[in-house]
Amino acid sequence: MSSIGSHALMAGGVGLFIALLLYISVRRRSAGTAVMAEISDQIHLGAMAYLRKQYTWLGIFALVVAALLFWKVGSETAACYLLGVATSSLAGFVGMKAATKANVRTTAAAKDKGEAAALLVAFDGGAVMGMAVASLGLMGLGLLFSLLSDGMDTISVMWGYAMGASSIALFARVGGGIYTKAADVGADLVGKVEKGIPEDDPRNPGVIADNVGDNVGDVAGMGADIFESYVGAAVACMTIAVTLTAAEITELFGPNVSVATLLALPLSLQLLGLIASVLGVLSMVFWRRLGPQQGITACELTSAVIFNAAAAFLLYTFSLPWSLFWALIAGNLAGVLIGRACHHYTMGAPVMRIAEASKTGAATNIITGIAVGFQSCAAPLLVISAAIFVAFQAAGLYGIALAAVGMLATAGMIMTIDASGPIADNAGGITEMSGLGPEVREITDRLDAVGNTTAATGKGFAIGSAALTALALFVAYKQAVEQVSGDLSMEISDPNIIVGALIGAVVVLVAASMTMSAVGAAAVEMVTEIRRQFHEIPGLMEGTAKPDAERCVRISTDAALSRMVPPGILALGAPVIVGFLLGPVALGGLLLGSLLVGVTLALFMANAGGAWDNAKKSIEAGHLDGEGKGGEAHAAAVIGDTVGDPFKDTTGPSMNILIKLLSIVALVLAPIVA
Amino acid sequence: MSSIGSHALMAGGVGLFIALLLYISVRRRSAGTAVMAEISDQIHLGAMAYLRKQYTWLGIFALVVAALLFWKVGSETAACYLLGVATSSLAGFVGMKAATKANVRTTAAAKDKGEAAALLVAFDGGAVMGMAVASLGLMGLGLLFSLLSDGMDTISVMWGYAMGASSIALFARVGGGIYTKAADVGADLVGKVEKGIPEDDPRNPGVIADNVGDNVGDVAGMGADIFESYVGAAVACMTIAVTLTAAEITELFGPNVSVATLLALPLSLQLLGLIASVLGVLSMVFWRRLGPQQGITACELTSAVIFNAAAAFLLYTFSLPWSLFWALIAGNLAGVLIGRACHHYTMGAPVMRIAEASKTGAATNIITGIAVGFQSCAAPLLVISAAIFVAFQAAGLYGIALAAVGMLATAGMIMTIDASGPIADNAGGITEMSGLGPEVREITDRLDAVGNTTAATGKGFAIGSAALTALALFVAYKQAVEQVSGDLSMEISDPNIIVGALIGAVVVLVAASMTMSAVGAAAVEMVTEIRRQFHEIPGLMEGTAKPDAERCVRISTDAALSRMVPPGILALGAPVIVGFLLGPVALGGLLLGSLLVGVTLALFMANAGGAWDNAKKSIEAGHLDGEGKGGEAHAAAVIGDTVGDPFKDTTGPSMNILIKLLSIVALVLAPIVA
Repeated sequence: MSSIGSHALMAGGVGLFIALLLYISVRRRSAGTAVMAEISDQIHLGAMAYLRKQYTWLGIFALVVAALLFWKVGSETAACYLLGVATSSLAGFVGMKAATKANVRTTAAAKDKGEAAALLVAFDGGAVMGMAVASLGLMGLGLLFSLLSDGMDTISVMWGYAMGASSIALFARVGGGIYTKAADVGADLVGKVEKGIPEDDPRNPGVIADNVGDNVGDVAGMGADIFESYVGAAVACMTIAVTLTAAEITELFGPNVSVATLLALPLSLQLLGLIASVLGVLSMVFWRRLGPQQGITACELTSAVIFNAAAAFLLYTFSLPWSLFWALIAGNLAGVLIGRACHHYTMGAPVMRIAEASKTGAATNIITGIAVGFQSCAAPLLVISAAIFVAFQAAGLYGIALAAVGMLATAGMIMTIDASGPIADNAGGITEMSGLGPEVREITDRLDAVGNTTAATGKGFAIGSAALTALALFVAYKQAVEQVSGDLSMEISDPNIIVGALIGAVVVLVAASMTMSAVGAAAVEMVTEIRRQFHEIPGLMEGTAKPDAERCVRISTDAALSRMVPPGILALGAPVIVGFLLGPVALGGLLLGSLLVGVTLALFMANAGGAWDNAKKSIEAGHLDGEGKGGEAHAAAVIGDTVGDPFKDTTGPSMNILIKLLSIVALVLAPIVA
Repeated sequence: MSSIGSHALMAGGVGLFIALLLYISVRRRSAGTAVMAEISDQIHLGAMAYLRKQYTWLGIFALVVAALLFWKVGSETAACYLLGVATSSLAGFVGMKAATKANVRTTAAAKDKGEAAALLVAFDGGAVMGMAVASLGLMGLGLLFSLLSDGMDTISVMWGYAMGASSIALFARVGGGIYTKAADVGADLVGKVEKGIPEDDPRNPGVIADNVGDNVGDVAGMGADIFESYVGAAVACMTIAVTLTAAEITELFGPNVSVATLLALPLSLQLLGLIASVLGVLSMVFWRRLGPQQGITACELTSAVIFNAAAAFLLYTFSLPWSLFWALIAGNLAGVLIGRACHHYTMGAPVMRIAEASKTGAATNIITGIAVGFQSCAAPLLVISAAIFVAFQAAGLYGIALAAVGMLATAGMIMTIDASGPIADNAGGITEMSGLGPEVREITDRLDAVGNTTAATGKGFAIGSAALTALALFVAYKQAVEQVSGDLSMEISDPNIIVGALIGAVVVLVAASMTMSAVGAAAVEMVTEIRRQFHEIPGLMEGTAKPDAERCVRISTDAALSRMVPPGILALGAPVIVGFLLGPVALGGLLLGSLLVGVTLALFMANAGGAWDNAKKSIEAGHLDGEGKGGEAHAAAVIGDTVGDPFKDTTGPSMNILIKLLSIVALVLAPIVA
């Protein structure tokens, strides 16, 4: 396995090439009528303009951080940091470009060729992002791996790479989350509630911004999130590997296994995962005729079966102990189960409880939603506990990190599914805005509904993988500190740990408060502007004049960019301050505290938000006796849904990144503060 | 200090005697007109009926737990457990009796003698509860202390005493919280919203239950909470004292200090605190002319100054090191600062932010309230961190527990203030129900407003003391386990700790979900019944027929009693299951996880709930430009307030108890699972 670095680099190259082919195949398809093309162009330009501005800000930010790293940590770490920033940004850029080209082509395919064709376009569009994330992640890791020899000093530069990916992710998630919800809430409050016009109505000045937001938040934000987990899990695994002594390794895995093998294993598994993802994506050509839901499930299963078989074969070929396989499977299974649990709470029986509670008004809708949200944390947290327990029993601390790698190995496939959801959502918006018939809307609605289901599962998966990755990084931090300063005790009753843990909770809560407030403030700006346009542009309501959509895009962009900075500074600054002021033990406490409160908030907010959303939809669909659109229960459910918007799309997802970013910054700081 | 046990017993006896004198003086006052007396009787009977039923259930429950303790732990622990149950119940009973007698007498004093007299009655009524809590707590501790000789085996039976107090507290808080909010939400939704009649209108069948609820929740619930913290802090302090080696003690405190001194210190301080509280209460005779707000502050300050001076004198007299004083002051100051912080978030500028957000509807009101709630956790958590840091630097692990003792030493005074709030609230209700003039209502309103301010501070104090006590118990648990099984490592990266911590988070979240759902379900039952009465009783709305208030009281009672059981079983069962299945390390993790998530939720929910409440009130008072009662912003704020009701009065306060109960159960189990 010694040449794994160059193999990973090559496999990543092949994956990128496949992404390019998919992109070309999507681009070649018809973009429909001139009206459709124009709307799609507006969305594309808006999204790209946002991304350009975001990357400009991030470029400056990254250079400052790189300079600090160069000064305090080392030139190699600084360089790797910039590599992480660059690869994650590139993946986001490629994925967004494809997604904003695929949306209108999905509409056109639905119009001209029917559901199966439309599904394939949306899926292939998402696959560009999926392949880009996995391939670029693997290439970066492979490149560093081939450049470096073994040992602690060189592994530490990998932390810089993961930190680069992590910084991008925080800004992409927070900025994207603020963007998408400011636009969504603003457009809905004026359009649907005040003016009584349908969603995605072309007269609404905010709809373009809303559609841009879907891409910015759900494609670019989610991509950066998964990219970070993918890289972070591998880096944590390698870090733990080099901190194990030869004796420990022999005790855990027998005499056949060396440090080199443990170092190479995560990359090898990710390589297999990429191959499995490519095959899974390509298998859609066969499965698309099963219909959207079954087709996507079949692709996912294809990838999973191929990956697990290949992983088993790998272990068998190199005579590695099966205990490693159990750790891998624990992570894999945990990902599936957490996805199922989140699906249950956002699509199953609890949703009807919330819908039922809407009958007695908005207050009981909110109370029930919050109760459901709290309850929904239990199963995922227990599953994570079980996965940690099994992985540790099987393969020690290394097993915990390996479980995270196992969960994320087929990230290419998972990201593909996640990214095709917003493409279908956009396709529906374009159908509405360009006035296509109900039969087209029906197809895009069906695709969108599947997208909502996969999004519920996908969000659960993102949280689960973030939790496991953060835990692995946390263990790696502890090991890295011990490597430098000997057997440093981090007992839970040590006041430094308790103080650190409380500060960790504070960091998470303040970041959550900042992002919630940001959406509120940005939405108010958006509402004011949309109201102004309806008021000042004559003929807008009658459809004879065009809205100034660009201005709304600009408001969302500016709001997102300016408000993503404070949480970012908090996340990067807190570990530095605690590490230098209170020392490595308190910093360990900070990681534990932020992890516990952060994962809890991530699950609570994602699930409560999703459940409110679907409670509203189920009332609209007439699933609540005697209630429907326009009734009192519906009005109550709309309030719940609006509260849930920043929960599930801004603050909740930001928590994923926050806990990983804190861990990775701590890891980079470990040798200095220890 | 060797005879401190009997001194504490005597001092407690004197305190109880003062409580009796206060009770007699309250009883002797005029209960006003026949109508007033009748209403007061209804409230009194409802409250006492609830308490009787609750204690019956609890008696059975306590006997089962005592039998289990007898079987698995020892007969002495079982006996002490029952003593804890009995003393806490007795304090609750005495306090409730006084509170439900003082309410109508406060009204009568306001009617006949004016504000200063009314203040004194409400204050004296509350002081009965205050004296009962502190005196009975001290007597129990003193009794056990004099019966026992030093050393680990005998200290362990004190844990049984604390556990008894803790069990009562959980049921009192959860049951009381469900009772009061089911009645409040139910009465408001039908009375104020649907029928448009004022709060506390005698035609509303739910108002008696609502007024009973104030006593059941805010008097009995709060009393059991403070009682538990008071006992828990002392027990944690003593436990840590006996686990210190002679060498450690000498290193920390010099050669003058022995284990016996450290064991006696918490009791001595609490004895001084009781004296300071008594003097503070009696000083109201002088201060009442300053007006309600200043009068109460003056009493509080009197107690604080006397206590700190006496504590300093004690340390000086026995030549104890000043480091102990700093730990004490750290706890004392932390209590004040946390109270101030909670006061700011529930009464200050953030409230206007929420009121402002109500202009754009209920959704933005809720989003802003949640953002404020998250933010409000930061300052208290940082204050707790600072207190732990200072206390530990000054006096080691013992210092942390001593800080908790310092915070709670004047519990008699604090509880007096807390209990007089709901008495004033009830007095206002009786004024309204018996149709007294606006000049009387004005006085009771002013008293009630002061009660709301002190309640905001008091809730913060309760959370702060719960957090510090739970932390002290947690440290004591760790020490107790080590006492048995040697230097048992509880490293934060140990998977057992992580798994335990995640399970701890789950326990807290599930309990939170249970209590939130319970209020929702019970409120629906109440709404249905009140609607039925308005529908079926002819002449009720016209005021010619009487409502069946008793039936509403019964619904609240039954709902509270049946729904308080599942969270209770969860809280007692979880540490047992984790301890026996996963061992003492995972149990330590459970405590840490539950503490972090529990304190966070307690602060978040108490402050968000309080802020929503006052945002509504500030709109009603006309503090928001162009908005007022009946407007759209007000309607939005009412929804926020209703959501906040179970936040601040049911689930939030339950979290306080939960984290303490989990710690104390773990402590009792420590010798068995270790």
